[in-house]
Amino acid sequence: MTETGFTVWITGLSGAGKSTIASGLAAALQEAGGKVEVLDGDEIRATLNSDLGFSKEARDANVRRIGFVARLLARNGVAVIVAAISPYRAVRDEVRAAIEAEGCGFVEVYARCSIHELTRRDVKGLYQRALRGDIQGFTGVSDPYEEPLHPDVTFDSEAESEQDSLRRLLAHLGTKGRGVRPESH
Amino acid sequence: MTETGFTVWITGLSGAGKSTIASGLAAALQEAGGKVEVLDGDEIRATLNSDLGFSKEARDANVRRIGFVARLLARNGVAVIVAAISPYRAVRDEVRAAIEAEGCGFVEVYARCSIHELTRRDVKGLYQRALRGDIQGFTGVSDPYEEPLHPDVTFDSEAESEQDSLRRLLAHLGTKGRGVRPESH
Repeated sequence: MTETGFTVWITGLSGAGKSTIASGLAAALQEAGGKVEVLDGDEIRATLNSDLGFSKEARDANVRRIGFVARLLARNGVAVIVAAISPYRAVRDEVRAAIEAEGCGFVEVYARCSIHELTRRDVKGLYQRALRGDIQGFTGVSDPYEEPLHPDVTFDSEAESEQDSLRRLLAHLGTKGRGVRPESH
Repeated sequence: MTETGFTVWITGLSGAGKSTIASGLAAALQEAGGKVEVLDGDEIRATLNSDLGFSKEARDANVRRIGFVARLLARNGVAVIVAAISPYRAVRDEVRAAIEAEGCGFVEVYARCSIHELTRRDVKGLYQRALRGDIQGFTGVSDPYEEPLHPDVTFDSEAESEQDSLRRLLAHLGTKGRGVRPESH
């Protein structure tokens, strides 16, 4: 009953490594004995949010619903790791405020990667299709992505290995008390 | 980490006392030191499910989404109490199967009350309006309600006091190990 839940919210473009970081972090926290739940944007769009498209309203609804679930889990002592493009700053901030209002920590992680690099990797071939115009409203190409202004942690998979990113994130969670602000104790 | 979460799912017509039972049960379980989360259909329709109407599809989506959240909470050790009309048997059974597949208990509670009695009470005046045809698709009047075939616990607020119902439900949770089937231990 004394565990304090928190949310690590990983935002960034498709292919920037959000799910990879999420999996690595989940494994590390589970190994340490904590309750962990990963809410992956792609998976949630296949279940909870299967009705949603990709308009701004639908993207905002997607983030709000994930935030709703994250808040309930976090306030019950779960470490919640969200991996979702979540392109709009205002809704990300809204979710953060709702979770912090429960006395739970919120750590915004920005998985940064240039469009140039993402197009070069293009694991799923989506960027080439988006650049050709075959996919409409693709975040970062033909749809907005608003970078976090003050992310708690920033990853750049062009400059840093996955291992190093993960170590840095774990260190942040350790030293910052999982993002829970001292006053809220 | 050893707590096993479970879900108490209270189904029944509007006004049959679902929220009242949910509150009473939540208070009792919290007092006993457990993590408890109430998912009230009316409240969820104002937040997570604010996009949904009252067609069969929307009602099913409402129940599925509540079930999704209940499952995540239950598998993290939370006692989840759902109070939702949830009129269709098939989706209730689908949710039950998904939660039991996590090794979590599921206790179906049927808050039974006759239309005659609900119309007599009619706290919110909804039944008179529904019977006059001013509200379309009102469950139990002009929209289906499929009674549970084998509810784990049945309440009848015409025949039993709230206190007695609650005591009976707590006894059921105690003796049945919170609905977790012995084989899953």
